[in-house]
Amino acid sequence: MPYTIGFDFGTNSVRALLADISNGREIATAAFEYPSGEAGIILDPFDHNVARQNPADYLVGAEVSVKEMLAGAKKKRKDFDAAEVIGIGVDTTCSTPIPVTKDLTPLCMLEEFKDNLNACAWLWKDHTGYAEAEEITELARKEHPEYLARCGWVYPSEFFFSKILHCLRVDPDVFDAAYTWIEECDYIPAVLGGITRQKDIKHSRCGAGHKAMFADDWRGLPAKDFLSKLDPKLGRLRNRLCCKTYTCDVAAARVSEEWAKKLGLCANIPIAVGVIDAHMGAVGAGVAPGKMVKIIGTSMVDMMVARPGQKPPDIPGISGVVDGSILPGHYSIEAGQSGVGDIFNWFVNTIQPGGKESSTHRQLTQKATKLKPVQSGLLALDWNNGNRNILLDQRLTGLILGQTLHTRPEEIYRALMEATAFGALTIINRFEEYGQKVKEIIAGGGIAEKNSLFMQICADVTGRELKMPVCLRTCALGGALAGAVVAGKDAGGHDNFNDAQNAMCRMMDKTYKPYPVNHKVYLQLYKLYKQMHDAFGLKSWSGQMANIMKNLLEIKDRANK
Amino acid sequence: MPYTIGFDFGTNSVRALLADISNGREIATAAFEYPSGEAGIILDPFDHNVARQNPADYLVGAEVSVKEMLAGAKKKRKDFDAAEVIGIGVDTTCSTPIPVTKDLTPLCMLEEFKDNLNACAWLWKDHTGYAEAEEITELARKEHPEYLARCGWVYPSEFFFSKILHCLRVDPDVFDAAYTWIEECDYIPAVLGGITRQKDIKHSRCGAGHKAMFADDWRGLPAKDFLSKLDPKLGRLRNRLCCKTYTCDVAAARVSEEWAKKLGLCANIPIAVGVIDAHMGAVGAGVAPGKMVKIIGTSMVDMMVARPGQKPPDIPGISGVVDGSILPGHYSIEAGQSGVGDIFNWFVNTIQPGGKESSTHRQLTQKATKLKPVQSGLLALDWNNGNRNILLDQRLTGLILGQTLHTRPEEIYRALMEATAFGALTIINRFEEYGQKVKEIIAGGGIAEKNSLFMQICADVTGRELKMPVCLRTCALGGALAGAVVAGKDAGGHDNFNDAQNAMCRMMDKTYKPYPVNHKVYLQLYKLYKQMHDAFGLKSWSGQMANIMKNLLEIKDRANK
Repeated sequence: MPYTIGFDFGTNSVRALLADISNGREIATAAFEYPSGEAGIILDPFDHNVARQNPADYLVGAEVSVKEMLAGAKKKRKDFDAAEVIGIGVDTTCSTPIPVTKDLTPLCMLEEFKDNLNACAWLWKDHTGYAEAEEITELARKEHPEYLARCGWVYPSEFFFSKILHCLRVDPDVFDAAYTWIEECDYIPAVLGGITRQKDIKHSRCGAGHKAMFADDWRGLPAKDFLSKLDPKLGRLRNRLCCKTYTCDVAAARVSEEWAKKLGLCANIPIAVGVIDAHMGAVGAGVAPGKMVKIIGTSMVDMMVARPGQKPPDIPGISGVVDGSILPGHYSIEAGQSGVGDIFNWFVNTIQPGGKESSTHRQLTQKATKLKPVQSGLLALDWNNGNRNILLDQRLTGLILGQTLHTRPEEIYRALMEATAFGALTIINRFEEYGQKVKEIIAGGGIAEKNSLFMQICADVTGRELKMPVCLRTCALGGALAGAVVAGKDAGGHDNFNDAQNAMCRMMDKTYKPYPVNHKVYLQLYKLYKQMHDAFGLKSWSGQMANIMKNLLEIKDRANK
Repeated sequence: MPYTIGFDFGTNSVRALLADISNGREIATAAFEYPSGEAGIILDPFDHNVARQNPADYLVGAEVSVKEMLAGAKKKRKDFDAAEVIGIGVDTTCSTPIPVTKDLTPLCMLEEFKDNLNACAWLWKDHTGYAEAEEITELARKEHPEYLARCGWVYPSEFFFSKILHCLRVDPDVFDAAYTWIEECDYIPAVLGGITRQKDIKHSRCGAGHKAMFADDWRGLPAKDFLSKLDPKLGRLRNRLCCKTYTCDVAAARVSEEWAKKLGLCANIPIAVGVIDAHMGAVGAGVAPGKMVKIIGTSMVDMMVARPGQKPPDIPGISGVVDGSILPGHYSIEAGQSGVGDIFNWFVNTIQPGGKESSTHRQLTQKATKLKPVQSGLLALDWNNGNRNILLDQRLTGLILGQTLHTRPEEIYRALMEATAFGALTIINRFEEYGQKVKEIIAGGGIAEKNSLFMQICADVTGRELKMPVCLRTCALGGALAGAVVAGKDAGGHDNFNDAQNAMCRMMDKTYKPYPVNHKVYLQLYKLYKQMHDAFGLKSWSGQMANIMKNLLEIKDRANK
């Protein structure tokens, strides 16, 4: 009986999942928490924008998690044989570029750079490049607006070139020492496949298309001339970056002897081209035209695919429209919110810290569940980590209003949940304005699994039914699907994703349906949210509020100098 | 050696203070915590606007506190003789009207009404009459705008007639059973003096002038015709309310035999006409033209007096301009903020509750002291308990903006302090626009005593030096001054307040001077505060934000029905 493995390299850990190709059943799974930094994230106490990772964590994590997973499979199915594993799929966070040497060794693994944060992997949530992001946006707006159309008219601080240009500016030694920069989703298949030359990498369409303005319309990455205007060195780097991209129905490599040994698998198993974690999650969740997949975790990612062959229009404020980046053969549309679980965690862990009597997520959720919509009179903006869509502005901040002397913690907790649901509705409305109907929502990720209050609030706010896949580890399952597709039907896998999804993706019986009464009240509240959203977020707003948060940050920055 | 007693009837307790008339020295003091409700406040779990008190608490409190205070004096000065006490002054919270029978017995002391919240004292912070306040404001605006000019163009929900009219509407039985309604500051001297008829009460100029639109310009309280239009019954009540008022250099009564026995004092000691607590505090703190006195506690009260004989103009948004209500012979100007310590307490006790590891005021203050102004990038509006001045709007709510995923509790705590200081500056600026220069600030009250961080923030934000009286119990000391003045020089007291202040009020050596660097940064931040203040608070603001909080409350109210 053939099996396939999905690797999901997340923000804090890597997970390996072994799936039965015939029905998608999860046979065994194991996770490995990254040991470096705080929960795998290397921080800089003097700069909140910094978030880095140690690529060595990925490698030890791959090894440890697969071994543990295979041991688990053996316990569960006595007749299980690792030789029956026929394919591997990989997803990772993105954009998480790593500066590497010519033989693809991460710079931070060299003695010379081992303590240098800039030589590490630049995690997706690193915002240090915000000034460079503005610079790139500015130049693109003037010279190549078509680049911006694909990422919602603003190139964000956490994307590929913002990070690399920032490194060039603040740490030229690292920049100069790097032969090239490679996305985590390209790095993992390359390492597992024993690839040691940049030109042998099969770059991810998903990673480059969504985060690096790669498109066939303009022959790949942004023009050398464009990058040179940002900095001549960046222009010269272009030749050593990707020039062709692939979708995840293509094998990026085959498992090397060295890694076969480390993992306890056969050599030569095909490894699918890497994909952004959320996109892989969408595949595993059963994304299809009309079905939006939401991966709800520390942040929220929304995934849609257009009808086969349909090219959707550019959608203002939506960060990614890329051909084949989710399902080969479909244009995919990606959007997202930069803080969801992170915001809830902030409130519980930072604002209500520690002590025995403090509230936990569970306690707050219990109390918040008893509240009616709008009962507390609170309204929040979900911008504690900036706004990814529709406003594409990392320098926006969170806001809560409506507090009285009687406001309770669970009311704030619920208001933060409602705010993120309003943020989700804002994105859905924008999708529909541009012809991409959202008929139902498939939700995956940690919060979908754990917090039924948040799920119900999302249903009530959006007025749409939320379904959940049976396998809640959709990213890893999506990887397993890709593994089955690159193996192919002849080897016991599947010929395409449609077949793979039909065989391997199932929905749970329990769904979250919107309560009409709540939906009605929330639509009233949403009008106020939208008013605040526009007032504080839109530069074009006719009132004079939009400058407040920025002015505040400017004064803050000056005071902290 | 002659002594005098000041009684300070506060929100949670009553304090008695025995002062040496020659130098103002505090010989002994004692406090009694009100036993009813929560910390003396009777609440309604279903209506956050309700705040009532049990008048029996006042009476037992007077007795217990004086006895304990006299025992303390005896210990301290062996030769102390209670017969040397020559005068008593009284201050209370206000407007705290009590419905009473013809013999001035509070209705809640009758068997029939003993469990009825509406038959209790309606504490100053009771906001149930907000709809009636709007009704009164509306009618006055049309027919008697001169009434409103004295209270900042809006008659607030917590003032005398808003409460009585609300009672009439929601509990006509209580209204009908009440012969009259009497302010706490009139009730206490009446009880101590054995007065049992409404017409024998010497009503407080301070209480009636500030809270009941009483002025000699229109012969006392608002016209019968005006009150009748609100409700005929209210018009009829006018004849049984005060028709003449007195300043606190006049004796309201002399201690009765019964109360002399209870208190352990001689009978016939003069009791000064009652005064609002904050006003008495201003007297005790040494208020004078150019010197603003701030009483900083759960809320903040600002007190000024004009130059002798000068009648200040009506100041929009300032709630009280009354002749002689602080110092006889000076027009007094009162303003205030409805939440200060209450807001800090809300954050510490409600948002960061209990547990051993949670933060206390002390811990948060220590951490917040280490922050620089604007370091956190937070900005708050101090409206958790509405806005008393300049906006005079109880239906405004609190707001915090600028949160990130890294925002710390001490940053929020400090932002709340900064917000209240900005609220204070807004009031000072308005005073000065109308010709009342604020050269220095004398601060009293619990927070002035306990929180040097808040004091420094106030100095830095306002750019003015903050001084503190040696005797921090300025309200009770002010009462003692009034006791000395009504006793008169011949009896060993003082002939007037100027003499009494010169003899009895002293300032501490330690003061809070503004740091120019901080003041400069805070003036930048204040511009944003003012922008938010106007955007959310002013109906006339040209943007479209002012309706947000109201709309939110309306939706909330409907949802909670």
